[in-house]
Amino acid sequence: MDLTLLGQQAQASARKLALLDTKEKNRLLGAMAQALVTATPEILAANEKDLAQAAANGISETMQDRLRLTKERIAEMAAGIKEVVDLPDPIGEVEKMWKNEDGLLIGRQKVPLGVIGIIYESRPNVTTDAASLCFKTGNAVILRGGKEAFASNQVLVEILQQALIKEGFTPHVIQFVTDTSHEVATEMMRLTEYLDVLIPRGGAGLIKRVKETATVPVIETGTGNNHVYIDKDAQLDMAAAIVDNAKTQRPSVCNAMETLLIHEAVAAEFLPVIAKKLAQHQVELHGDERACQYVPEALPATEADWSTEYLDYILAIKVVDSLEEAIAHINRYNTKHSEAIVTDNYFASQKFLQEVDAAAVYVNASTRFTDGFVFGFGAEIGISTQKLHARGPMGLEELTSTKYIIYGEGQIRS
Amino acid sequence: MDLTLLGQQAQASARKLALLDTKEKNRLLGAMAQALVTATPEILAANEKDLAQAAANGISETMQDRLRLTKERIAEMAAGIKEVVDLPDPIGEVEKMWKNEDGLLIGRQKVPLGVIGIIYESRPNVTTDAASLCFKTGNAVILRGGKEAFASNQVLVEILQQALIKEGFTPHVIQFVTDTSHEVATEMMRLTEYLDVLIPRGGAGLIKRVKETATVPVIETGTGNNHVYIDKDAQLDMAAAIVDNAKTQRPSVCNAMETLLIHEAVAAEFLPVIAKKLAQHQVELHGDERACQYVPEALPATEADWSTEYLDYILAIKVVDSLEEAIAHINRYNTKHSEAIVTDNYFASQKFLQEVDAAAVYVNASTRFTDGFVFGFGAEIGISTQKLHARGPMGLEELTSTKYIIYGEGQIRS
Repeated sequence: MDLTLLGQQAQASARKLALLDTKEKNRLLGAMAQALVTATPEILAANEKDLAQAAANGISETMQDRLRLTKERIAEMAAGIKEVVDLPDPIGEVEKMWKNEDGLLIGRQKVPLGVIGIIYESRPNVTTDAASLCFKTGNAVILRGGKEAFASNQVLVEILQQALIKEGFTPHVIQFVTDTSHEVATEMMRLTEYLDVLIPRGGAGLIKRVKETATVPVIETGTGNNHVYIDKDAQLDMAAAIVDNAKTQRPSVCNAMETLLIHEAVAAEFLPVIAKKLAQHQVELHGDERACQYVPEALPATEADWSTEYLDYILAIKVVDSLEEAIAHINRYNTKHSEAIVTDNYFASQKFLQEVDAAAVYVNASTRFTDGFVFGFGAEIGISTQKLHARGPMGLEELTSTKYIIYGEGQIRS
Repeated sequence: MDLTLLGQQAQASARKLALLDTKEKNRLLGAMAQALVTATPEILAANEKDLAQAAANGISETMQDRLRLTKERIAEMAAGIKEVVDLPDPIGEVEKMWKNEDGLLIGRQKVPLGVIGIIYESRPNVTTDAASLCFKTGNAVILRGGKEAFASNQVLVEILQQALIKEGFTPHVIQFVTDTSHEVATEMMRLTEYLDVLIPRGGAGLIKRVKETATVPVIETGTGNNHVYIDKDAQLDMAAAIVDNAKTQRPSVCNAMETLLIHEAVAAEFLPVIAKKLAQHQVELHGDERACQYVPEALPATEADWSTEYLDYILAIKVVDSLEEAIAHINRYNTKHSEAIVTDNYFASQKFLQEVDAAAVYVNASTRFTDGFVFGFGAEIGISTQKLHARGPMGLEELTSTKYIIYGEGQIRS
């Protein structure tokens, strides 16, 4: 696997892609969407290989289901690309333009980042999602998917590339790393000469490894150790609905809640109610000492519980004496993803919004809303939990950089 | 040197600083500016130590001059802080706010980055500049200056800290790394638990080392291998003025020009004229084969010349056959800082603006204008040559992150 060659090809093709107007990019995206549908049998055949391998490796039914493609899922992937076609193209927009004291007309224009590397572990639909979002924003992409979906991912990229070739455009804007070894992944993380940014999408282990290894600028995504704090002035029925939703509506995703913080003034009333509600989903409760008094069925929480992203039907519970204690706990243990307060109190809400350090801070709403589609961006390449470049759900705009374009009349600096 | 302790103190103090309103931040900045003026004798005494050490180490007169502080230069540093007081505070601004389909009111608010690390080699004024810009934007800063200015930098930070203590605020928002060893610098570059971003300011060697070593997100600054391209349709007197300015007005800075690209149609006329003009500054010319024919006094350029940031009275010259060749040369060798074309041709200017990959692209103006003050930002923490987060001159706005604040009414996700 020659990553340098992939990098050179990506860089050269990115320059060509940057020159396409929106109409032409949309036309090519449409062709790629159509090609996926046409190639459904081919994709299903490749997916069968991955599924057989998964079964042979004893991978869980849930994971196998995540991996499985069907005619409908392929149609959804194609529909996803068509949705990207319909989104406004941010490239070329001059965000602001002004004359400076020297009479120079200075504009800040949105331009592609260049070449984006994506290392992911998730389902095969990430392949077409990421490829289409990068393409729409004028970026070449180098994709490195997980071993489990290797055959599916590879055939998906081939189909997209063939569609581009058929339309007379370079296939190198979407490339696939066919070597899934650790060494090649490491090399990719350090491919500074060709990659302008690296976006890891996957579990905490992958994110950690990328952070420790990468020299390419990284946009960290994903892990969400999220809290809901029930204030002493909360409406408890609203609180119960929000906690139930944030924990059980889809526990495996990064915007699900992991720890419930409850003010001691309402703990005795609220905890038995919510415990009963959560029992309908067999949620396992890990409580601190006080929580266990109110909910005897809870297991005793350990220090590790406060830092754990369960991604499962498990909830940690801590009783706190004040809003301040809740905020301090959150800022100590959270992964800066999504945090919520339930309260009727104006000053409590303002304090929580201001002092909690996270990408998305909610008053009286479920953490589950942190999502590019829900926010109205029309797409999502991931949810950034770092503070540089992009924070929170990343749509098309977050896949752009800027360039100053300056119109002069012969000015020199004195 | 316990960097972990510095990191913990910085993080805790950043939370306090983030809560100050603009008036209070400005009041504290004013106190710091005043403290610098009051402590002039103390600063001069520390600076004397650095100067004596520099002389003993046989450091050049130019470098010694960069290091030297005077009563006037200290007054300028204080005045610089007062200018930061007068700048608008970006923190708290809600860039946009909208209701989504669920009725959630979602706002994107500018917030501090958190803790910023700055590793710099430059003159002592960077200490007070960086400290005041980070403070104004609500960021704690950990400063690690160069060995040469150690005593000066240390006393400057102490004075700023004493001013904060006197005003009843924590001094940990501005901290100084007193160990200048390589090991501690490396540790700082990997202090991911506490640093939200690392900004290196210095020569190509420092930038390279930070890029290779850092796991903390980096904003790369500085190196500028910049070109001016003289098109066949250029006004040659304007071209000569721009080249002279871009090369000789201040050759030691990153926005100075390093290579002249000239269209062959005007090379015979232009090169002897510009060579004569540059001879007034004893500029050494390194020309390709054709350039040397027109300017016999030029030395033959080698491949290395095209990649070199001289930062000196040296200019590389290459004759090209077309605008396309000029653009290809620039995109191959530049450091993506500042690039200029001189032309009367509309389509040549548009093509150059669109296809040249750099932070700032000029038509008919000197590259020397790439500067936060000149652009009208009122300040500059550096010039980013990367594409993530910030590109080009970085003012206060570039020292911020964002947070989504979301006002709900009990919404849960369905």
